Amino acid sequence: MSLLIVGTMAFDALETPFGKVDRIIGGSATYAAWAASNFTQPIKQVSIIGGDFPQEELDALGARGVVFDGVDVIKDGKSFFWSGRYHLDMNTRDSLITDLNVLAQFDPKIPDSYQDCDYVMLGNLVPAVQAKVLDQLKHKPKLVIMDTMNFWMDIAMDELKQVLKRVDLLMVNDGEARQLSGEYSLVKAAKKIQAMGPKYLIIKKGEHGALLFYDGKIFSCPALPLEEVFDPTGAGDTFAGGFIGYLARTDDISFDNMKTAVVVGSAMASFCVEKFGPTRMKELTNEDLVNRMAEFTTLMDVNVEIALIA
Amino acid sequence: MSLLIVGTMAFDALETPFGKVDRIIGGSATYAAWAASNFTQPIKQVSIIGGDFPQEELDALGARGVVFDGVDVIKDGKSFFWSGRYHLDMNTRDSLITDLNVLAQFDPKIPDSYQDCDYVMLGNLVPAVQAKVLDQLKHKPKLVIMDTMNFWMDIAMDELKQVLKRVDLLMVNDGEARQLSGEYSLVKAAKKIQAMGPKYLIIKKGEHGALLFYDGKIFSCPALPLEEVFDPTGAGDTFAGGFIGYLARTDDISFDNMKTAVVVGSAMASFCVEKFGPTRMKELTNEDLVNRMAEFTTLMDVNVEIALIA
Repeated sequence: MSLLIVGTMAFDALETPFGKVDRIIGGSATYAAWAASNFTQPIKQVSIIGGDFPQEELDALGARGVVFDGVDVIKDGKSFFWSGRYHLDMNTRDSLITDLNVLAQFDPKIPDSYQDCDYVMLGNLVPAVQAKVLDQLKHKPKLVIMDTMNFWMDIAMDELKQVLKRVDLLMVNDGEARQLSGEYSLVKAAKKIQAMGPKYLIIKKGEHGALLFYDGKIFSCPALPLEEVFDPTGAGDTFAGGFIGYLARTDDISFDNMKTAVVVGSAMASFCVEKFGPTRMKELTNEDLVNRMAEFTTLMDVNVEIALIA
Repeated sequence: MSLLIVGTMAFDALETPFGKVDRIIGGSATYAAWAASNFTQPIKQVSIIGGDFPQEELDALGARGVVFDGVDVIKDGKSFFWSGRYHLDMNTRDSLITDLNVLAQFDPKIPDSYQDCDYVMLGNLVPAVQAKVLDQLKHKPKLVIMDTMNFWMDIAMDELKQVLKRVDLLMVNDGEARQLSGEYSLVKAAKKIQAMGPKYLIIKKGEHGALLFYDGKIFSCPALPLEEVFDPTGAGDTFAGGFIGYLARTDDISFDNMKTAVVVGSAMASFCVEKFGPTRMKELTNEDLVNRMAEFTTLMDVNVEIALIA
């Protein structure tokens, strides 16, 4: 099934304990598209870029089935730029520079050719922009998933809550789930957030994996323990892209299939962090994927039939 | 198979965000015995108590198959006392009072009637005391597991490392694994710790579950997401008791069975934290256990066969 992804396509400057890069391709929609394209094509991208966004990057994504009819190109503008430095634990980071550039004028237009999309991913953006995408959809998609961040909770909570009512699944990290709900316990936080709109909730916990909540049930997916996390940038976006790409491919939004999709997303994130930026995502082969899923099997597979004292 | 547990039997005073108790039964060996007795009996306890330790508590443990030939009773002494206050996140705590009392003179004696034990748990104690227990064993057990804590790494690292060489499995939390190895990555930490002696390593991550490392393989067990953690005291000890109690019952130390044992330990810890002290452990029924294991199945069960683009 067709997948629509809205998000940023950008440049990043990154500094981790392992090194730094001054300018590398980034953006939530870029990462998500690379991950999703392992499972479903075409991917109908909605974004905005400046004239500085490299043609070869567009070509590389195009070769993976990503279409750009919904990507606004501002020839004399500059693409969104973000610069960040990760701390040693790799779970926390400082934003050094955030230059919105063309993103400040992002007014997404959904082309007619995108109206067949049954799967929609709203990447982390101003809530009002996320809402504009939903406003333009002529039929209700099978699944709308949404990413967001603490920044929007700080400055645009009301708008964020309006969008929440219109999506099926929200994806946030544990700190954001706590902030959004005002509850420390993630189980309580999940109940409150689900009451705000999304039937499904994924809480991402970085190196501790992710939790999927639906209808009183919980699935816990571990992160793959890694010797080194080289660069966490894009981990959340590749998680989201792998997750919804897999659902779009299988066209099955049962809880059981969503659990598999969470493992797929976790596998994508585990690849993403192995190299700077989207480098590793571009190299991925089907064999890599199959092997990584087998690693998740080893990590999770267990017999829970137990012998008790009678 | 017979199980030998060495550790403390004590009184605790506890303060959590949900309330406080001034004097409740505690101690690593107490918690571990309650958990293990769901799976294996007899349990051969090694500890030291004062004349103040309640006879009804001994009777209650005795009714669960715990024997006390190896428990030194100092009639005119006072039992070990610990007092602590938990922070809101329930993962961190301050020790307020630590009165060693009779524990200061703990010189464990292993009775002949204990020499048939194939499974041995060394609870968190001065490493030299743990070593004394091993010194007295006349035949090599099938499995020796060891708990310890950061305090011994600070003041007795050399002695600790000597004991490490003699055990099969070490159980520590993530912070302790990092301190012991000097590595931030838990995968790297595990390799270094396994090179110190224990073939098996369990790294406990509180609400994020536990990792079992063996022979280059990793198993990740989630913690059960709970609405409320009422009192975390004893969670690690009931984890250890459930883990080794289950292994002793099944007499199977294959990696696959150890994975099941980790889930059993996690289930025990999930019960323990529901009420103050060992209260919940005393009420447990087989039905509770079977239902909780089923909850872990829901939490972990997933199909990882994936559909890829050819």
